[in-house]
Amino acid sequence: MTPEALVSFLHDNIPLSRAMDVSVTSASAAQVVLEAPLEPNINVHGTMFGGSVATVGLLAAWSVMHLRLEDEGIKCQLVIHRTETEYLLPVSGCVTASAVLDTSGWDHFRDMFTRRGKARLTVTAELLHNGQVAARLTGEFVAIAER
Amino acid sequence: MTPEALVSFLHDNIPLSRAMDVSVTSASAAQVVLEAPLEPNINVHGTMFGGSVATVGLLAAWSVMHLRLEDEGIKCQLVIHRTETEYLLPVSGCVTASAVLDTSGWDHFRDMFTRRGKARLTVTAELLHNGQVAARLTGEFVAIAER
Repeated sequence: MTPEALVSFLHDNIPLSRAMDVSVTSASAAQVVLEAPLEPNINVHGTMFGGSVATVGLLAAWSVMHLRLEDEGIKCQLVIHRTETEYLLPVSGCVTASAVLDTSGWDHFRDMFTRRGKARLTVTAELLHNGQVAARLTGEFVAIAER
Repeated sequence: MTPEALVSFLHDNIPLSRAMDVSVTSASAAQVVLEAPLEPNINVHGTMFGGSVATVGLLAAWSVMHLRLEDEGIKCQLVIHRTETEYLLPVSGCVTASAVLDTSGWDHFRDMFTRRGKARLTVTAELLHNGQVAARLTGEFVAIAER
């Protein structure tokens, strides 16, 4: 999937991503990098709202998982089970969310999915502002086989 | 602050809350109840996007903390430090976010703030759909005295 195809997919299927003006810098089954500007995501302090920071991280984590499943031809429903976000620094401009798939955990995930029709995988997204890690989101996803 | 005043405050200062069409059911220094409809918050499965669910929970938790600080005349910058969200059930319609202030922790929080000019408090928001708890957000906030 190209960055253009991923941004269309997100904007068409998750309208919040359009409201946040999320764009896609790179998209592959190994890594997804998203970006969000400050203005539609601002808070009362003039910095980026924590809800927006976590959401762009979740979109990046979900996207890389989605692209990897698509790449391997795994048909499933992918749902989020748990997220944790640490806010480290205020974001006073554009934020970049980078999610890299944990390849060491992938084989176990695929084995579990094949055997049980259900498996979990944790994906982490780093939120960067001006080259510094401003937040970190960890998302635990569950893939459930389509019947 | 009336529900009308809180919804105006949120929509004017956090544009994402307007994009999500968040409304305020009740607002006091003890409890805040917010609501969000499905349509602007939908995901690829036709249920509510996890980013929206967590965000309406965060807005409720932040709001009750903000109203209590205002009620006690505490001038500070209130920032989010960490959030954790558990997703328990899919949300196939409107979601309600209810955040109740932990009064047992408040006295300690206020003492710490008075002594050190900085204090933390954890606020939990329950996300309800059709009377069932569909998700739970726990947010750890930090209040920092204004200089």
